[in-house]
Amino acid sequence: MIKLGLVGAGRIGRLHAENIVYGIRGAELVTVADTLLNEEMEQWAYSLGVPKASKRVEDVFSDPEIDAVLICSPSNTHEDYIMEAARNGKHIFCEKPIGSNLSKIEKALQVVEDNKVKLQIGFVRRFDHNHKKVHDAVKEGKIGEPWLVKITSRDPQPPSVDYLKTSGGIFFDMTIHDFDMARYLSGSDVVEVSACGAVLVNPVVADLNDFDTAIVTLRFENGALGVIDNCRQAVYGYDQRTEVHGSKGCVWVENDRPNTSLVLTAQGTLGEPFLWFFVERYKEAFIAEIRVFIDAIEKNLDPPVDGMDGFKAVLIARAADESAREGKPVKVPKV
Amino acid sequence: MIKLGLVGAGRIGRLHAENIVYGIRGAELVTVADTLLNEEMEQWAYSLGVPKASKRVEDVFSDPEIDAVLICSPSNTHEDYIMEAARNGKHIFCEKPIGSNLSKIEKALQVVEDNKVKLQIGFVRRFDHNHKKVHDAVKEGKIGEPWLVKITSRDPQPPSVDYLKTSGGIFFDMTIHDFDMARYLSGSDVVEVSACGAVLVNPVVADLNDFDTAIVTLRFENGALGVIDNCRQAVYGYDQRTEVHGSKGCVWVENDRPNTSLVLTAQGTLGEPFLWFFVERYKEAFIAEIRVFIDAIEKNLDPPVDGMDGFKAVLIARAADESAREGKPVKVPKV
Amino acid sequence: MIKLGLVGAGRIGRLHAENIVYGIRGAELVTVADTLLNEEMEQWAYSLGVPKASKRVEDVFSDPEIDAVLICSPSNTHEDYIMEAARNGKHIFCEKPIGSNLSKIEKALQVVEDNKVKLQIGFVRRFDHNHKKVHDAVKEGKIGEPWLVKITSRDPQPPSVDYLKTSGGIFFDMTIHDFDMARYLSGSDVVEVSACGAVLVNPVVADLNDFDTAIVTLRFENGALGVIDNCRQAVYGYDQRTEVHGSKGCVWVENDRPNTSLVLTAQGTLGEPFLWFFVERYKEAFIAEIRVFIDAIEKNLDPPVDGMDGFKAVLIARAADESAREGKPVKVPKV
Amino acid sequence: MIKLGLVGAGRIGRLHAENIVYGIRGAELVTVADTLLNEEMEQWAYSLGVPKASKRVEDVFSDPEIDAVLICSPSNTHEDYIMEAARNGKHIFCEKPIGSNLSKIEKALQVVEDNKVKLQIGFVRRFDHNHKKVHDAVKEGKIGEPWLVKITSRDPQPPSVDYLKTSGGIFFDMTIHDFDMARYLSGSDVVEVSACGAVLVNPVVADLNDFDTAIVTLRFENGALGVIDNCRQAVYGYDQRTEVHGSKGCVWVENDRPNTSLVLTAQGTLGEPFLWFFVERYKEAFIAEIRVFIDAIEKNLDPPVDGMDGFKAVLIARAADESAREGKPVKVPKV
Repeated sequence: MIKLGLVGAGRIGRLHAENIVYGIRGAELVTVADTLLNEEMEQWAYSLGVPKASKRVEDVFSDPEIDAVLICSPSNTHEDYIMEAARNGKHIFCEKPIGSNLSKIEKALQVVEDNKVKLQIGFVRRFDHNHKKVHDAVKEGKIGEPWLVKITSRDPQPPSVDYLKTSGGIFFDMTIHDFDMARYLSGSDVVEVSACGAVLVNPVVADLNDFDTAIVTLRFENGALGVIDNCRQAVYGYDQRTEVHGSKGCVWVENDRPNTSLVLTAQGTLGEPFLWFFVERYKEAFIAEIRVFIDAIEKNLDPPVDGMDGFKAVLIARAADESAREGKPVKVPKV
Repeated sequence: MIKLGLVGAGRIGRLHAENIVYGIRGAELVTVADTLLNEEMEQWAYSLGVPKASKRVEDVFSDPEIDAVLICSPSNTHEDYIMEAARNGKHIFCEKPIGSNLSKIEKALQVVEDNKVKLQIGFVRRFDHNHKKVHDAVKEGKIGEPWLVKITSRDPQPPSVDYLKTSGGIFFDMTIHDFDMARYLSGSDVVEVSACGAVLVNPVVADLNDFDTAIVTLRFENGALGVIDNCRQAVYGYDQRTEVHGSKGCVWVENDRPNTSLVLTAQGTLGEPFLWFFVERYKEAFIAEIRVFIDAIEKNLDPPVDGMDGFKAVLIARAADESAREGKPVKVPKV
Repeated sequence: MIKLGLVGAGRIGRLHAENIVYGIRGAELVTVADTLLNEEMEQWAYSLGVPKASKRVEDVFSDPEIDAVLICSPSNTHEDYIMEAARNGKHIFCEKPIGSNLSKIEKALQVVEDNKVKLQIGFVRRFDHNHKKVHDAVKEGKIGEPWLVKITSRDPQPPSVDYLKTSGGIFFDMTIHDFDMARYLSGSDVVEVSACGAVLVNPVVADLNDFDTAIVTLRFENGALGVIDNCRQAVYGYDQRTEVHGSKGCVWVENDRPNTSLVLTAQGTLGEPFLWFFVERYKEAFIAEIRVFIDAIEKNLDPPVDGMDGFKAVLIARAADESAREGKPVKVPKV
Repeated sequence: MIKLGLVGAGRIGRLHAENIVYGIRGAELVTVADTLLNEEMEQWAYSLGVPKASKRVEDVFSDPEIDAVLICSPSNTHEDYIMEAARNGKHIFCEKPIGSNLSKIEKALQVVEDNKVKLQIGFVRRFDHNHKKVHDAVKEGKIGEPWLVKITSRDPQPPSVDYLKTSGGIFFDMTIHDFDMARYLSGSDVVEVSACGAVLVNPVVADLNDFDTAIVTLRFENGALGVIDNCRQAVYGYDQRTEVHGSKGCVWVENDRPNTSLVLTAQGTLGEPFLWFFVERYKEAFIAEIRVFIDAIEKNLDPPVDGMDGFKAVLIARAADESAREGKPVKVPKV
């Protein structure tokens, strides 16, 4: 039985906590820590049967009973917490992004390596039944050499302006998932990025020096090209499509719906809306990624999405950000 | 150049005439005859460039210039006109049904045989791109032995009560197409029929001693079972689906739509309505069946849907009618 | 916390047990009883953390700690066990069919009523996301008056001959689910059945005086017609489609697949096979039905699928069986 | 009856000629001219019933009987032939591209205007049932403000190397259709282009200083963004998808197939391959565009795709070409 501590009890932290308690065998959540711990959070932890709730993250990092930590705190704490966890010999599951400061990320990766702990980054889409199938078809050679990677990724509704103020910008907050997908699906690293952004959903976003709609062209090490289109608003639901076109064919996936019904009337044939957002769409994938993390610890395996994957996604995001601002293609540094 | 005469300038006759004039190479429509010929019909024929229009059907049957006739007159004239055409050495394309009086049909078939003319029955669905694919998949063994044949056939809206009064009943007028489809798709004759009818669309139909909704179960000579569901009203458009399930798999076809668009909004994903009715749905098939008829004449081939096919469909319809009225399965006589 | 006892630890019993242990909050499985209990079953129960395993079903029925029982034993025990449980004041979840002896079923229903316990029958498909949507669309009037109900239900592969020997026949074992679906989707009782069976999958089935392929036509109290097509073998996976056509439109659902991928090559566009069988297809529905049962106990609600629903499905199955054997439509007795 | 002359009897010229002879009422093809006229071409013209075939294009331009010309000769003749036709008072249907020399195109447009003849450019996709539906949905406001335009356009197989040597490059020869689509679907002009090309299909293309795979990002005057992905080879058939995402929803279209069949076996569910190439895919659209052209002449209407549309597509292609070669976004000059 792997004992886990959670650091950060916000939306994504709670989602993981509930999955562990109700959906994962062989793991036990023993402590929840959040620097903003309040009565509501304590009640929530209690209702889950988690024995300890604390305001001090050290209560997780230094607890000898705890085998592994889940870092779900704000992005700007990630590198530090990774290092603290690693130095205490804890295995680490860290939500994306791994960080924003390149040299701190590199240092954190070194500390992880030195302390021989496992680090898995929360790129949950790799565990999705649809995108995984695209990846597998490419890997198994079903479409020959990959030539074009296409990713559509649109949120149903924009986050709050408060959130946007500290999100780091669309490329670090939203597209970062797609940058990881691009590497995962193509089986190759990204060498150059050309990004084009616009403010179309909400004019306030321009004041934040951010974009809410973007198209990013990628050039891969293996010669393939890729394209991501993002928008912060898709009123019809979370739009998550991936596709790889190659020398022997093409593979793509459509969006998931809650059921396969078609209602046929004189107005046309009405299918269900798509699943609303990531909680619904990646429900199974969130469970699967923690299962894989627990498994990696138990069987001493390498996690399938490691710190270097987290680092590379940040490097691509930085290149995209620079490209969109300066109006030119930008090389991605090789690491 | 095959010279054709049309007998009966109603809806279906005009459809064929326009296809011949505008869509068929190698054939020429030289006379239109209709016992109810009026000024409007003459104008229509003139606008098509057809040289002769007549009130006397003999002007078609006895014209030495004419190679073949299209019989599109009311059903109760079919057997007589077939015989008249055959005795005059004309090849015959006859709309369904071939007739309603069994002994007259048998006699007509004999006259056709004696006069060595070709007779093709207008079972247009055999020439449809979708249903043909189901047939071909079965014939090529892609689904192994056929076990279950399923046909859904629903009209968008019921015909007028006037039409219903003389239609001969749902099994002779509407299901007769499906009876032919059943034989075509299964590659086997029907040996027993069990039908169940209801009046759900319009209560007036009950006064006519007819049904507007029906389910017909078929037992085929090769042991397979089949089922047809019919309804005189489907507000979402002409519903034309076929399916064959067998030992190695299944093949089915969906309805056609005018385009592949999906409009995605907060209400769901809206696809196009189905093509409205047979004119739209079987547009290409109506042209194809006449092309095949012309070809059969030119190259001296057997038409792919002949008089015996027309006769067998009538025999199944009679069995279905009896079954629905008497509440018991009815054997189909072997011919 | 509702305490449950399981009677019958075969395939379906274990499925429920594992769902309760891992997927249902608010319920606890405290005893497993099976008259054929062996070491392997004991190990299985132990691995689930179930405290007691017994060879005596009375250890469940008479245990004062137990609130409710799950009857997953062979069909011929169902009526007796229902009565025994009810007399001991236990709520009852009973797998389909509720029984096979009509007078015993009626007696069991009386005992249930007298003892004021809840009885839910395991018609799991009512809890499926697809079929539920068809039901809801009909109930909400989206398609107007229901006229035609269509159910396709085909198993991926036939059960063993040993199983078939005691299954009670295709209508009691397999179609019984569809008979319940027909009532659920139409919102109406079945008044007449006309069935047609064949042995196409395996000739041995004929020796058992059973069928492996069937088409059943239904007439509903509200005037609608229905049709079910069954086959014991569909090599492409479990085929579970439902449809209701009505005065204002139609609603149907397609089969579920493990993912939405399409692999496009020169050979065509290849989608995933359907989910293989009921374990995969109704995975969520099996959990949902037990949740509803627990909920009904906790909140003192009527279970949505009760003993009368179980009884009515058996009455339809008997009519279908008689109809198929005697070649005539058979009335369903009103209860 | 509009009398037409064809200039250029290559693949596309013959396609138009056959459509006019067999599929268009109200128009008559009276002369075919091709500077490379040979016996085979003469035979072809004769078989169509076209009275005159000539080696001299002047025989079309100067023939007083001719109302309108179809320019289907090599691209480098387009501007000159447009001017010659206009000066002779002929209406003009000119295949894409309108030309390659910007000042000559401008001059040709002036001559067209001065001579008050109609000029329609052969952007056939505007007349396609699918893409037209996307356009209409946008125009009717069904998706609100357009934000993202997505076009996938892949040929089934690359043209011959000989063809590629004189094609003008992928952006002028292939993507030019997509540039027009982008304007048509968005309802807005393109102001900036950023293109990224690669040679992945055939290394010989690199020697020609061309690309065979490309991603082009567009910025529209109305603020929207667009993206086109092209590839010269898609072994699964002509891939022609368009999509517009906006403030109130999204509209997209899928590829057409020859029929709706699904063959279900243990290997999966196999749908038909897509229609192979433009001849099959845009069969109806090729007829429709000529019908519209004839109609514009008869009713004195403006053609829906005029010379300025042709010119603008060339300007975007030039910007794309420069962008791909110099690795930077390029502005599209306003005209």
